[in-house]
Amino acid sequence: MLAATASDTALLRAAPPELLSRAQQDFRSLLTAFLMRHAGPDARLNDALAYAMANGGKRVRPALAWGACLAVGGPWQAADSAALAVECIHGYSLVHDDLPCMDDDDLRRGQPTCHRQFDEATALLAGDTLQALAFCALSDASTDAELAPYSAQQTQALSVAARDMVYGQRLDLAAEGRSIRVDELSQIHRFKTGALIRAAVRLGALAGGATEAQLAALDQYADALGLAFQVHDDVLDVIGDTATLGKHAGADAAHSKATYPALLGLAPAQALAAELTEQALAALTPLGSGAEPLATLARYLLARDH
Amino acid sequence: MLAATASDTALLRAAPPELLSRAQQDFRSLLTAFLMRHAGPDARLNDALAYAMANGGKRVRPALAWGACLAVGGPWQAADSAALAVECIHGYSLVHDDLPCMDDDDLRRGQPTCHRQFDEATALLAGDTLQALAFCALSDASTDAELAPYSAQQTQALSVAARDMVYGQRLDLAAEGRSIRVDELSQIHRFKTGALIRAAVRLGALAGGATEAQLAALDQYADALGLAFQVHDDVLDVIGDTATLGKHAGADAAHSKATYPALLGLAPAQALAAELTEQALAALTPLGSGAEPLATLARYLLARDH
Repeated sequence: MLAATASDTALLRAAPPELLSRAQQDFRSLLTAFLMRHAGPDARLNDALAYAMANGGKRVRPALAWGACLAVGGPWQAADSAALAVECIHGYSLVHDDLPCMDDDDLRRGQPTCHRQFDEATALLAGDTLQALAFCALSDASTDAELAPYSAQQTQALSVAARDMVYGQRLDLAAEGRSIRVDELSQIHRFKTGALIRAAVRLGALAGGATEAQLAALDQYADALGLAFQVHDDVLDVIGDTATLGKHAGADAAHSKATYPALLGLAPAQALAAELTEQALAALTPLGSGAEPLATLARYLLARDH
Repeated sequence: MLAATASDTALLRAAPPELLSRAQQDFRSLLTAFLMRHAGPDARLNDALAYAMANGGKRVRPALAWGACLAVGGPWQAADSAALAVECIHGYSLVHDDLPCMDDDDLRRGQPTCHRQFDEATALLAGDTLQALAFCALSDASTDAELAPYSAQQTQALSVAARDMVYGQRLDLAAEGRSIRVDELSQIHRFKTGALIRAAVRLGALAGGATEAQLAALDQYADALGLAFQVHDDVLDVIGDTATLGKHAGADAAHSKATYPALLGLAPAQALAAELTEQALAALTPLGSGAEPLATLARYLLARDH
């Protein structure tokens, strides 16, 4: 296994979003090389894959994978393949969720969605390819004999998350237009977004050589963080400013979508997000100072205004 | 590792389609248990998964996985997860290929396609789930510590095949309505159907504890067989009888689809299928009598009339 470098160690003491900004920067070059390695014979499909992955937002999931690897004492690069794998699954899910037969969205983060930029068949195939590429990423790394021992556990964690994410999308579609309870809403989010956040943390931790106790602590962290992230997202939709959000504030209410503020009230929803963040932070305690970047990330995600 | 049983050994000396009929029978019960284990919270999506996988055709890919496992001296059950995994990928690809934005088919093997029986969103999600479940199948098995060593190689072979299959579907769509050369047609088939046939054989062989030399021989077998299968399919479309085929004979010509008989002439296409089958059989020679079921399967697939 590679040794932790001086810059890994520096990051452990870093200011708020350094884990995230390093993740964003590293991910860009990693992605370019990865897509070149897996380029297919059709240029248009290659373009669609790059397009879908470029419009990538904050790279929270790769940051979680790298942060979890550092938290258990592993070196940053050990989690490269985990970062790629979870972000490929995330990218595929966005492309398919935007399709006409699903949410039928024309824009994502201000850019035309994949099927608008290309066409529906290309977007469908790009999503399908990205799901396959996620598992290619995991097994690319395992050609390194040292990385093989936890390969089965990574495949298991990622495939179960990919399965549960679809189940969550299905629950979400089925809940549209009917009133649901707050525990049902939490179940939807645990499947739809929580599963992949847990997988990001777990894959990174496995790559870093985590013990069972470390994995259990990080699972708790990821579970609380995933829900906190979603509650805060709902809160932002109510209190946020349209220009900052990059989407219409109040869009959830306009679509009569179930949200935490709608079900609980705004202040209780804000309190719930804060409480879940505290739970996430508490779960990190046994990991010591190595988990500081993950703690900082959790605080940052709750404080964000977009 | 489990010991080969008396019925495994009996199969090695069996008559024509015994590998296939045992595969069909075993697959049915294996699939039921697998889908129950991975059932999600939405009944309709569970139904769609079962529907998509039930209308399964000949189970050639599971048979290849089991046959390859036997061919390298492994016990039948060692390849259960390989059989499930490749057939889940096959099932997902059929559901997505039938969608309106792709081939827009209403019927598959005489039954309504998944999106006609359910709806487009359900079919999209069922396909997405089946791709994830393929990798769940691989890692379900690897919780058995003895099976873990080749898990990374299985994930790699399956994910690359899943990627290449999409690339092949894309090439096929791009070739529609334009005239292509026979080497382009072979490239399309090597990606679109050949990749998964190679993966079926490789996953089964890995599960059976194959050596590098055995893997190389079986790769040659699978490569030749995959193409032979496709050439013969094209031939059947010309000479076959509509009632036996379960689809309209001559459909390829009616859709001005490039086929081997159209590009080479009927008799040369038949000769090519026979030559490829001979190549497949020759590749098995170093494996000895353990490879008899795979040889019988190859002969059967070329002799089939539907």
